[in-house]
Amino acid sequence: MLTYDLTKVDGPVYQALYEYIKQDILSGKLSIKEKMPSKRTLAKNLGLSTITIENAYDQLIGEGYMYAIPKKGYYVSDIADLEKIPVISKKTVRIDVLSKEEVIFDFSSNRTDGTIFPFSVWAKVMRETISLREKDLLTMSPAGGVYELRKAISEHLRSFRGMDVDPNQVIVGAGTEYLYSMIVQLLGNDKIYCIENPGYKKLLQIYDKNKAACQYANMDDKGILIEDLADAGADIAHVSPTHHFPTGITMPISRRYELLAWANEKPERYIIEDDYDSEFRTVGKPIPSLQSIDACGKVIYMNTFSKSLTSTIRISYMVLPEKLANDFYRELGFYSCTVSTFEQYALASFISQGYFEKHINRMRLHYGKKRLRILEAIEKNLPKGGYKVIESDSGLHFILELKTKVSDSYVKEEMQKMKMRIATITDYEIETKNERDHRFILNYSGIDMDGLDDALKMLCRVAGLE
Amino acid sequence: MLTYDLTKVDGPVYQALYEYIKQDILSGKLSIKEKMPSKRTLAKNLGLSTITIENAYDQLIGEGYMYAIPKKGYYVSDIADLEKIPVISKKTVRIDVLSKEEVIFDFSSNRTDGTIFPFSVWAKVMRETISLREKDLLTMSPAGGVYELRKAISEHLRSFRGMDVDPNQVIVGAGTEYLYSMIVQLLGNDKIYCIENPGYKKLLQIYDKNKAACQYANMDDKGILIEDLADAGADIAHVSPTHHFPTGITMPISRRYELLAWANEKPERYIIEDDYDSEFRTVGKPIPSLQSIDACGKVIYMNTFSKSLTSTIRISYMVLPEKLANDFYRELGFYSCTVSTFEQYALASFISQGYFEKHINRMRLHYGKKRLRILEAIEKNLPKGGYKVIESDSGLHFILELKTKVSDSYVKEEMQKMKMRIATITDYEIETKNERDHRFILNYSGIDMDGLDDALKMLCRVAGLE
Repeated sequence: MLTYDLTKVDGPVYQALYEYIKQDILSGKLSIKEKMPSKRTLAKNLGLSTITIENAYDQLIGEGYMYAIPKKGYYVSDIADLEKIPVISKKTVRIDVLSKEEVIFDFSSNRTDGTIFPFSVWAKVMRETISLREKDLLTMSPAGGVYELRKAISEHLRSFRGMDVDPNQVIVGAGTEYLYSMIVQLLGNDKIYCIENPGYKKLLQIYDKNKAACQYANMDDKGILIEDLADAGADIAHVSPTHHFPTGITMPISRRYELLAWANEKPERYIIEDDYDSEFRTVGKPIPSLQSIDACGKVIYMNTFSKSLTSTIRISYMVLPEKLANDFYRELGFYSCTVSTFEQYALASFISQGYFEKHINRMRLHYGKKRLRILEAIEKNLPKGGYKVIESDSGLHFILELKTKVSDSYVKEEMQKMKMRIATITDYEIETKNERDHRFILNYSGIDMDGLDDALKMLCRVAGLE
Repeated sequence: MLTYDLTKVDGPVYQALYEYIKQDILSGKLSIKEKMPSKRTLAKNLGLSTITIENAYDQLIGEGYMYAIPKKGYYVSDIADLEKIPVISKKTVRIDVLSKEEVIFDFSSNRTDGTIFPFSVWAKVMRETISLREKDLLTMSPAGGVYELRKAISEHLRSFRGMDVDPNQVIVGAGTEYLYSMIVQLLGNDKIYCIENPGYKKLLQIYDKNKAACQYANMDDKGILIEDLADAGADIAHVSPTHHFPTGITMPISRRYELLAWANEKPERYIIEDDYDSEFRTVGKPIPSLQSIDACGKVIYMNTFSKSLTSTIRISYMVLPEKLANDFYRELGFYSCTVSTFEQYALASFISQGYFEKHINRMRLHYGKKRLRILEAIEKNLPKGGYKVIESDSGLHFILELKTKVSDSYVKEEMQKMKMRIATITDYEIETKNERDHRFILNYSGIDMDGLDDALKMLCRVAGLE
């Protein structure tokens, strides 16, 4: 009979017993297929409760050292395999987390200004949500998001964008990148997705990682070219008609209808309308969205709070046309919503209490002023006739065309040496590269005004405009 | 010269002017290609500032009613297209959100008990996070998650699972479903993924939606069969060795090494170890994870806080082996993290202050007691000899084998008529369907103890065990 001294044991007794028996099995003291004493017998022998023996046996069985034959008893496993266990050397893991290089001034970042986010109001709303919503916070969110948030979004879209949207058409997700992958799952990765050129090249990566073919169509001064869409054999046009980045083009009504007409030619065609910066329009009222003039259910409207609030809040949404909304619930309704209920309710409350609209108005004022100060700084620091500002009426950047004799790469590289970053329109072009385009992009949302004069002087010097 | 009465205007003047001009263009009063007055001239004529005129013109241009020719002036667009604008009828959108049918008692739900979530502690930690972390909360999270959380997770894994993990190996995401799609993007959708049979059929759907081939391998009493993996031509084995659902099998060490050996045969082979309910083990210490005995970087370990905390918090993580972690940063590092910084910091603080461990211990005690009470209720309500309880040592369910003469479908359908739900092992089997298997699954985590006696009596009656 097994006998172990378990009187001086640290920690749980069953654990010590497990270790003793395991050692005896590993050392061969207990041999293969040997019958173990019953729980009751061993308990009696060791002066322990049967529960303790059961716990130890259970663990030994769980880890494969023993096995049970019903109504017969417990036996030692054939642990021949165990001898081959490789010893895992605790070597250091080498992981190259892509570290970002230091940048002292960055015209190329489209981050919004963290300082303008109304943190204290958001904190207040979060605290309220914690205090008032315990039950809701512990209730599972439907696949498309909690109703309160979708309702708040649809009301915001009605008042702010004149859009008539049923809350159930609104699908909430953890970021637009995630929603793009949902769209590929919804429309199929056998379709050809087509993005704007120039445009956000990151979309190429995202469609590629989702194993969907991605083409591009060129733009003229009215937006994406319909003939190019056709040439690319596109099924899905991914566009930003409100304010195209980086050109700043707002698609006029005539082109919008051409685009809708294109989508209506075939049942599988759809338009993804990326309206990510419509809130930043500083002049006039926003242009009606494509979605709001779409009579045939061809437009998937997308927007994000990661842009209009802060990039650290990961909530985006899409508005699906009727047919696709039904497809979503049927085909993808098994997915769990990727946003926690807490942030969904907090945001719903933030919107419905009017804080979001207030924030947008404050933001427009803020960026409007910032824009003017930057235009003044340009006038002050750049020689007259050496540049041209190409403004667009919305969004958070404009274009600075430099009358320079050096190549655009030279300008960017020299800036880089000074730890300053600037991008050109051609950086956003796919394939074609014109080194003499000279249109530089000034993203002004996230830049630090203190360093602006120096950065502009540097730009002037490297471009030979002094 | 255009003349409008703008003295009695409600709202912004530029808006009214925009409307007047738009009407004149639409009505044909202003004809196609007609030159518009300069901003200065019109301002003078109407007694308004040039800014007001500019705002109105900008909007008209933005919407395509006018266009500008540099250094020449403004012109009325050809709005012929506008006549074709379809009138969008504000019809009601019909969306079938899959509504769940009413269920009064559900043995089939694997929801955890909402009441056991330590909401007040979580609320306290959230409030602290709001108060102390403003700056961090507004700083963008790296693709894999904020370092504090990944460090807290790696320390938890060390103390709780004996795993030696670098925080940079930990990748945080909004739910395991999202992380599965990241894995497909990382390993490729040209691989064959293989799940356990029986097992979570939802995985079939997820791999299918991610356009990856998904096969299955059968199980014996030690877990997934290696020959079946080979027969299926699997590249990736997706397993839950700690506690398989629904069989409750814990994979013994010998099979674990067989599985690791299988993975080591080819460089493209990997194992996904789904450890989603290791925290619920109520007896003995947890079985070592596959990840911790993997010497060759073949195991992707996954776990979720949506299970161990509450399903409304969408935070899961995976631990990537060195090579895959580097692949992740290089290939998928462009993605934004899908979890907001707020919940990441709150969870990091919750773990590192020891609340998570406390919660796990409390939960085990709670479910251990619940389990006993349910076993008692079974003994009380079911006739002796009419059933057999097949217990497993971890997880939140056990198997009730009924000595019934009716088919399993009949039992389930009759229960359904009484708005009660119960599932069988065969419900989790792919293809094969044995109507006389009679092994019913009792998920006890989320059930309401008050209705238990009645539910068991009903089960007894429909199975003809009275």
